[in-house]
Amino acid sequence: MERRYRLVLSCPDRVGIVAMVSNFISSHGGSIADANQHSDPVTGRFFMRVEISAATLPFTLAQLQEAFAPIAASFQMDWEINDSSRPKRVVLMASRESHCLADLLYRFHSKELFCDIPCVISNHDDLRSMVEWHGIPYHHVPVDPADKSPHFAEVNRLINDYEADVVVLARYMQILPPDLCDRYPHRIINIHHSFLPSFAGAKPYHQAHDRGVKLIGATCHYVTEDLDAGPIIDQDVTRISHRDLPEDMVRLGRDVEKTVLARGLRWHLEDRVLVHGNKTVVFS
Amino acid sequence: MERRYRLVLSCPDRVGIVAMVSNFISSHGGSIADANQHSDPVTGRFFMRVEISAATLPFTLAQLQEAFAPIAASFQMDWEINDSSRPKRVVLMASRESHCLADLLYRFHSKELFCDIPCVISNHDDLRSMVEWHGIPYHHVPVDPADKSPHFAEVNRLINDYEADVVVLARYMQILPPDLCDRYPHRIINIHHSFLPSFAGAKPYHQAHDRGVKLIGATCHYVTEDLDAGPIIDQDVTRISHRDLPEDMVRLGRDVEKTVLARGLRWHLEDRVLVHGNKTVVFS
Amino acid sequence: MERRYRLVLSCPDRVGIVAMVSNFISSHGGSIADANQHSDPVTGRFFMRVEISAATLPFTLAQLQEAFAPIAASFQMDWEINDSSRPKRVVLMASRESHCLADLLYRFHSKELFCDIPCVISNHDDLRSMVEWHGIPYHHVPVDPADKSPHFAEVNRLINDYEADVVVLARYMQILPPDLCDRYPHRIINIHHSFLPSFAGAKPYHQAHDRGVKLIGATCHYVTEDLDAGPIIDQDVTRISHRDLPEDMVRLGRDVEKTVLARGLRWHLEDRVLVHGNKTVVFS
Amino acid sequence: MERRYRLVLSCPDRVGIVAMVSNFISSHGGSIADANQHSDPVTGRFFMRVEISAATLPFTLAQLQEAFAPIAASFQMDWEINDSSRPKRVVLMASRESHCLADLLYRFHSKELFCDIPCVISNHDDLRSMVEWHGIPYHHVPVDPADKSPHFAEVNRLINDYEADVVVLARYMQILPPDLCDRYPHRIINIHHSFLPSFAGAKPYHQAHDRGVKLIGATCHYVTEDLDAGPIIDQDVTRISHRDLPEDMVRLGRDVEKTVLARGLRWHLEDRVLVHGNKTVVFS
Repeated sequence: MERRYRLVLSCPDRVGIVAMVSNFISSHGGSIADANQHSDPVTGRFFMRVEISAATLPFTLAQLQEAFAPIAASFQMDWEINDSSRPKRVVLMASRESHCLADLLYRFHSKELFCDIPCVISNHDDLRSMVEWHGIPYHHVPVDPADKSPHFAEVNRLINDYEADVVVLARYMQILPPDLCDRYPHRIINIHHSFLPSFAGAKPYHQAHDRGVKLIGATCHYVTEDLDAGPIIDQDVTRISHRDLPEDMVRLGRDVEKTVLARGLRWHLEDRVLVHGNKTVVFS
Repeated sequence: MERRYRLVLSCPDRVGIVAMVSNFISSHGGSIADANQHSDPVTGRFFMRVEISAATLPFTLAQLQEAFAPIAASFQMDWEINDSSRPKRVVLMASRESHCLADLLYRFHSKELFCDIPCVISNHDDLRSMVEWHGIPYHHVPVDPADKSPHFAEVNRLINDYEADVVVLARYMQILPPDLCDRYPHRIINIHHSFLPSFAGAKPYHQAHDRGVKLIGATCHYVTEDLDAGPIIDQDVTRISHRDLPEDMVRLGRDVEKTVLARGLRWHLEDRVLVHGNKTVVFS
Repeated sequence: MERRYRLVLSCPDRVGIVAMVSNFISSHGGSIADANQHSDPVTGRFFMRVEISAATLPFTLAQLQEAFAPIAASFQMDWEINDSSRPKRVVLMASRESHCLADLLYRFHSKELFCDIPCVISNHDDLRSMVEWHGIPYHHVPVDPADKSPHFAEVNRLINDYEADVVVLARYMQILPPDLCDRYPHRIINIHHSFLPSFAGAKPYHQAHDRGVKLIGATCHYVTEDLDAGPIIDQDVTRISHRDLPEDMVRLGRDVEKTVLARGLRWHLEDRVLVHGNKTVVFS
Repeated sequence: MERRYRLVLSCPDRVGIVAMVSNFISSHGGSIADANQHSDPVTGRFFMRVEISAATLPFTLAQLQEAFAPIAASFQMDWEINDSSRPKRVVLMASRESHCLADLLYRFHSKELFCDIPCVISNHDDLRSMVEWHGIPYHHVPVDPADKSPHFAEVNRLINDYEADVVVLARYMQILPPDLCDRYPHRIINIHHSFLPSFAGAKPYHQAHDRGVKLIGATCHYVTEDLDAGPIIDQDVTRISHRDLPEDMVRLGRDVEKTVLARGLRWHLEDRVLVHGNKTVVFS
């Protein structure tokens, strides 16, 4: 894969943003390999993502960031530039259910997902062998239901020590404390096993069975303090029938969960997800 | 289409139901053209639908019903037998939005939906020309927001006078009073423009836009006293993106709404929907 | 809907195209409401579509075209600029099956599709009443199987006289002669009732039934001399089962056909479809 | 999971089949847990699948088969009865691409697929470690392109020795010789990476890219002598765009392939697939 610089930005919309950005790139000989933009008429905000062939620019990443900074400042941009050849560091967290974890590990192992996975953290020891077969350290951090704070302190320490760029809750069944959520805004990704906002909270498939819905779904979202209410990255559904008991929904839902989580994580790793308020712009 | 008797039943599950029913049919020479059954392990209830080639039985519908009654009684069945050649009478109700109405009228006109449509009732006069082109009487029954009871009294009178088998709320935007709901259990079908239970009530597409969901949907259900909470017949969804404003969702949602409503109504007309509690068994 | 100029172009890819185009727009105060681009690494061709708020430019359409021409020439662009407030003229052609025609007429009537429909042409008289109810002239042009050339001469004359921008074959079951195809490149849209390239030619649902496929589909494409082989605009499928006979596939397929055709036509009307070779770039 | 006897049959359609079968079951006290039937009006053939709670019958499997044999004979049935508690033996074959293999191994490991996997056979050694981690023997049987017969002789020997009930070609990229196909009718399952009959043969994603289709798919089918032409068990598709190169289609297609293969294999393992001619009845 060709090395690219990925420029991602948002700012108040006004005339001349695209011209200024594309001039900057072409004046240095940069070749635009991909570009997307979006103007939100409701909020008046402008969003843009540009992939530039790194070899066509006479800049290191740091030099490019420095050169672009004045433009960013003049348009009051929230922005970042990333190097596609630098893998993001993804800490995975799981509990006992292995389907999302196994799926992400496979996509990592087969190089479909371009990232590093410096460790897996779990409150149980069940999935150690599967993880270690992939050559990834496994940290079993038990939870004491009477006092969960030591667990979360240790989790926080590991995330820090491993310098995670992003944390993925791959069916990790604990609710993160607010301070942990706040420390990593838009950097913790969860998969919830329902089509949110329906069936937030516990046992969504049982809730779905009780209500008699004809489709079940899954939602990949950024974690915020509000349980199952953070910005949605992706969702999908699958059809069920009156024959399906909650345990059938669990089985059918697993395929939706892992597909939606893998897709959402991929988009995050490729800097395709921009958050504004409680919503996302996804340049997929 | 070959004429068929449709036997639909539910009863407490026990050994021998299928044998008894199929013996009854074959002992009279009846040929089973289609059959479905379902045992619900949660409620212990058994559901069955059988289509019998009418020409192979030596019975009129009334004779068949009389002959089957003792079996039904011995198994404590809720049951009915219908003649596929007798079209159900469908009263359509609409307001100003025409997409669901136009779709059902087209499917009726093109003989895709086998039914009679004795009249259309609306609280506005906008859709008269479209309806009357199909040769169907149009009743404009205005609503006085200060006192809706005359409207509903007239609606009730029309439903009665036209001997409706089923009433379809094709984006009829008024909430039916409880007594009207009670009078026609499992005979009033509504289309709600969201994937219930998400976004019940008013302006679901605006609710969906505010929440930032990535799919929007529609739900076809029987009307009960509890708003948007009756037994679900069918649901479907379509993908949206950050580019879609509420008005785009309205446009994209229309196709889902009309498809789901037409499918649900078709199943109802073919006696494929069995209600138990607040859920449906759909032998589609 | 805000009035917009739609600039659509393709040219050999090289550094500076986006910069030059966006500079041109912003230097005249133009506000970019939407933009898409695509670089095809296989062919080395660049594709772009920009929507500019017309009110922000000091140009009429003709002035804008004149002002942009030198840039277009310097990059060897295939290009056009359209005014979103000018409806394209769509001539519909049909035979006896009405589902696609009725669907397009409804979307036109309800203002979902922004276009003019100056006339409908058919080789049968069956659909006259439906068309005329919409206030659209209906031309019945019979086909003599022994000599179809008078039919096509008259069809060609009508297309010309009505100054069609685009012709839609809404289940018009005749094969157009090559000279007619050549006269309107990328301006004749057909709906084929299979998921091409499977089941090209006659009776695709019967072919699908014989092969025992588990999904059936429809394909919206531009018409070329090669039957069912032109550039594909959109496709979709729906699930079937062993229970479905060819006549059931016909019924289920109708919903796919009309959805795919309406979507493809909408994209064409909004200048979202760019053809290159035998393939399309669709900025949907 | 409750132990069940699964009776699967097909025979010429006539009056009384269901009555005879259900009488037989209920006269011995058998409780029907699930049942499906299908009458094909084109071929005049009747298909049925019944699940009976084993504990409610006073029979071993062999006794049940013996007791049912006279009924089967009198209706000229093709039939079998299986015990749901006996896992089928599935020999997996793969080449270098691991996605389908890894997916099936995971579903086996997590007990989602109820079967035995006595061995994996591959013409390369690449996937040994992944397979052996699951505790399954791995046989590397190289192919000599100049003479493939020793390879297939060894493959045949292994299938025999391991007493395979079914062989799954999980992206095994060799064409089986006719005699091997004939030896295991409806017992060799292949996944083809296109929506058949489109793009049979080699490099289907490249064929799809060349044609410019808007959806790509996968097909799970029984292997016959005719390449990619056997009875289809399941198919599915996913949407692509002009941005997707063949390598993107390969990536996106992998998820469809593994989902379709796993679903098809599951149905086969549960005796839900009945073959008649070149088509399948799937009681899913």
